Amino acid sequence: MRMSQHFPTTRRSTREGLIDSQRLLEQAGYFRNVASGVHALLPLGWRVLQRVRQIVFEEMERAGIQNLQLPILQPRELWQQTERWDKYVASKTMFTTTEQHSGAVFGLSPTAEEVVTMLVAGEVHSYRDLPVILHQIGPKFRDEIRPRFGLLRAREFEMSDAYSFDINEEGMRHSFELLRLVYERIFTRAGLINCLSVHADSGAIGGQGSAESMAVCAAGEDVLLTCDNCDYGANAEKAESRYPRPEYTTELQPVQWEETPNIMTVEQLETHFPGIEATDMIKTIIFTVDPDSGSPYEVAVCIRGDLEINETKLRNALKADALAPSDASVVREVTGAEVGFAGPIGLKNVARHLFDESVKGMTNFLCGYNTTDHHALNVNFGRDIPEPESYVSVHAARQGDQCAACEHGTLRESRGIEVGHIFMLQQGYARSLNATFTDETGAEQVIWMGCYGIGTTRLMQAIVEQNNDKDGIIWPESVAPYHAYVMTARASDECQKAFADQLVSDLMAVGVEVLYDDRTISAGEKFMDADLIGCPWRITVGRKAAEGLAECRNRRTKETTEEAIDAIVHKFATRSQC
Amino acid sequence: MRMSQHFPTTRRSTREGLIDSQRLLEQAGYFRNVASGVHALLPLGWRVLQRVRQIVFEEMERAGIQNLQLPILQPRELWQQTERWDKYVASKTMFTTTEQHSGAVFGLSPTAEEVVTMLVAGEVHSYRDLPVILHQIGPKFRDEIRPRFGLLRAREFEMSDAYSFDINEEGMRHSFELLRLVYERIFTRAGLINCLSVHADSGAIGGQGSAESMAVCAAGEDVLLTCDNCDYGANAEKAESRYPRPEYTTELQPVQWEETPNIMTVEQLETHFPGIEATDMIKTIIFTVDPDSGSPYEVAVCIRGDLEINETKLRNALKADALAPSDASVVREVTGAEVGFAGPIGLKNVARHLFDESVKGMTNFLCGYNTTDHHALNVNFGRDIPEPESYVSVHAARQGDQCAACEHGTLRESRGIEVGHIFMLQQGYARSLNATFTDETGAEQVIWMGCYGIGTTRLMQAIVEQNNDKDGIIWPESVAPYHAYVMTARASDECQKAFADQLVSDLMAVGVEVLYDDRTISAGEKFMDADLIGCPWRITVGRKAAEGLAECRNRRTKETTEEAIDAIVHKFATRSQC
Repeated sequence: MRMSQHFPTTRRSTREGLIDSQRLLEQAGYFRNVASGVHALLPLGWRVLQRVRQIVFEEMERAGIQNLQLPILQPRELWQQTERWDKYVASKTMFTTTEQHSGAVFGLSPTAEEVVTMLVAGEVHSYRDLPVILHQIGPKFRDEIRPRFGLLRAREFEMSDAYSFDINEEGMRHSFELLRLVYERIFTRAGLINCLSVHADSGAIGGQGSAESMAVCAAGEDVLLTCDNCDYGANAEKAESRYPRPEYTTELQPVQWEETPNIMTVEQLETHFPGIEATDMIKTIIFTVDPDSGSPYEVAVCIRGDLEINETKLRNALKADALAPSDASVVREVTGAEVGFAGPIGLKNVARHLFDESVKGMTNFLCGYNTTDHHALNVNFGRDIPEPESYVSVHAARQGDQCAACEHGTLRESRGIEVGHIFMLQQGYARSLNATFTDETGAEQVIWMGCYGIGTTRLMQAIVEQNNDKDGIIWPESVAPYHAYVMTARASDECQKAFADQLVSDLMAVGVEVLYDDRTISAGEKFMDADLIGCPWRITVGRKAAEGLAECRNRRTKETTEEAIDAIVHKFATRSQC
Repeated sequence: MRMSQHFPTTRRSTREGLIDSQRLLEQAGYFRNVASGVHALLPLGWRVLQRVRQIVFEEMERAGIQNLQLPILQPRELWQQTERWDKYVASKTMFTTTEQHSGAVFGLSPTAEEVVTMLVAGEVHSYRDLPVILHQIGPKFRDEIRPRFGLLRAREFEMSDAYSFDINEEGMRHSFELLRLVYERIFTRAGLINCLSVHADSGAIGGQGSAESMAVCAAGEDVLLTCDNCDYGANAEKAESRYPRPEYTTELQPVQWEETPNIMTVEQLETHFPGIEATDMIKTIIFTVDPDSGSPYEVAVCIRGDLEINETKLRNALKADALAPSDASVVREVTGAEVGFAGPIGLKNVARHLFDESVKGMTNFLCGYNTTDHHALNVNFGRDIPEPESYVSVHAARQGDQCAACEHGTLRESRGIEVGHIFMLQQGYARSLNATFTDETGAEQVIWMGCYGIGTTRLMQAIVEQNNDKDGIIWPESVAPYHAYVMTARASDECQKAFADQLVSDLMAVGVEVLYDDRTISAGEKFMDADLIGCPWRITVGRKAAEGLAECRNRRTKETTEEAIDAIVHKFATRSQC
């Protein structure tokens, strides 16, 4: 492709406030916004995406996984069978559309468990037909409340989604591990520099056990906690840790009721009561569950003063779709006091009262008692309030906590872009959609499933977020839109032009994809575009064309060599492909 | 891929009443219905589609056309700018969806002129940036009133759509002709046996001048008229012809008013009035225009008795979106008579009265006069009714008519599946969306556009409709899901199994894609599946495996040869690819 004919030209500047990858992809002309969260991939972006798709398809086929193409229009009835329709519509994560002639309602595929399970239910009859793993790449839709960061969080995006079907739990786990390996190969081939597989929350997909593939980079939206000693890593939403536990005395002190005017936070209390630390306090926090539904309700959660509540864990503990800290007016109703003085004693109208395991065994603790401007000291379970019947784990793990897996390491925080997510789904979807098989004894069994997703458009941008410098993108060979950027230093120089024409033609003859900058602009401008667009190699045909030499420059290392046409062509023809 | 692991297995029977291609694709397991007009492509179907896509992309790139990916979600505002939103929504051809958080409304792309023109408007500034042709392959959506014939008429389907942008009409015509050639190459490479480029109506896309690519086959929904002498061909909706015209006498006879009880049709009148032929009669037909809109209105059309009205031509003559013959009650209101006795004299409340050019110069003709059970004979323009001020051409061309292009040939009727449609759009879209450029003199000019579409999923099935026999599909090499179907006659025979394993491994090593039937079922069942699935070659490893020989059978010619492994591998490794 000649730059003189290329659509579009690059831009020297772009909007303010973009993260690096978004800015570079926009400037170089890889994509454009069409609406909020809706993009068009321009020719350069399309070429990268095609290469990403190719890697995904190849690795899936290598693993014996069969590719297919599921529809975007997903019948409402199927999603009602799995009880996901109302959930997805109520949470406004699904786009829907109605067929005018028949009135049939469809969701625009945010994922495809229902359709693929229905298909498998219609074709699989015997244990001999299993296992099977099916995979597709196609557009997906999520009605994101706040699309941002270009291709990273979009309303319309592309996903690679795979679904495994096995005869038992062991088979499901085997498929899950197979896909974990396939994903590793894909991300390595696609040029991610630092990609971690971490434990993750399963969210609306459900099932038990899931792992996210995280492209580690400062601009990532997700917070990761990884052990500096073992291979434990988890999304902060899901991470478990060991946290320091003081020895609590068993000698109970008499309870004291203290005035604490305007003293509400743990920090303020620590200052007000020298000697009492956050680990000696219990916070009580009121949450409203399913606030947007027709029937919201309140819960109270008690947690040790130095810890924070992880709302994902709390949602899971409550099996709730959504929750949020209650509004001040609700807190006043529930506690009968101003915000800041909630406590475990005397709450009204809370549907459930949860105790985080961090409060287990605490003695002589400080807490609120639902009276404005007052706190109680030396409160004890069993004496002042009933011993909790059970505990839940809803506190957030933190950087610096001890690793729960190896007990020797310390958790470190980093950020990542979620490029993949794999799930063990167990039998929920198959049971709802009646996807069964006959086992060796002739008995009917429910299929065990897994599902697996890679955001292919998101991956494109994650690669750029990890592979760039101040001048532009640095594409890995495997996904670069073109292998080489060939340019004349002076397009009006006949010798340079003839040399470059020949070189481009020879390179293309051996299968090298070339972006040929034949424009009559300055060499400096061409250098800038070459760096911005980021092909792995820039080949400059300049003054030494008369001697039969051109300059090859590696975009990543910036190393340059002067070589003859034949040597250049030979180098590209024989290079190893990723 | 091993048949023992393949998803799904074939079916020996299928639903009744399907056309050949649909039946064979369903039985062999290429696709399944998910909802009316919504399909899932199964692994075999996906592989064929990938090959079709590859051919399209290659031919586009060869012609210097740049690939990109436009979104499915198309902002309503853009479609309002071109005044297509109301049209597409009113005619119920567009699926729409609403973004819940912002209230933004989108159409699901039935085509993408608006989005691509907006993109080009933002990037193209100078005549130096043109011409540019952009192409994508992606899902498309049309709210079809009656989806049918499998992939041929679906609500969700896949299209290759290209858009050209030029500085003037000459450029537009040049791009149009380039795409016509690209399409010819694509259809030839994809294995269509008989594909015609015919003149077509431009429909809702608009513009002037369009051509359809028609895969000729008996099951086609479109009627084609082609000249047996020259290369003229047209969709019957659009076809022009010369039809026989008797010499009409100039000697006017006195008008006669005749009773014709219950005699309404041309045939009945010919019987009732021996000697008066259909070419001596004028039929008057009442149409209701835009019947589903808020303001329908009636028109009357007069045409010679032996000819029929082509509703597409009539719609174009009236610049109407929709029309239909009026209901009996409306006809009674307009004519004051029962249906069958309408005539050109004394109609009430018709907005327009059109005369087809076939009635020009007729004398002493028979027609109705809006009186039940009566007709008039020897009616004449200028004497009994006013001479029409103008004539339109709204009669349908027919098989047997003389070719309007060469004047020597005769039109023959055939049927076809529309696999491609190319349009000269002129400047309409660019003007509405302000897509302009600065010409060499510095003046601002509106871009000239063309658009081009191939139904890729429809093409898949059209290929099958043209390439099958009673036993199954006969894939052309270029789009076959696998090159070869390798099978053992007896899977339990160790020698056969070892031979087949080696052969498959050797074939795959030289890049041949193999479907390996390793199942322990009878050879007869395997033969049936091989024929049904339709790979170009079947290689049977049977008794002669002991001698190192296998049988190669060509699916199309049914020719068989016995060959050694090395010879088979060599033959496949060196065969020419389409």
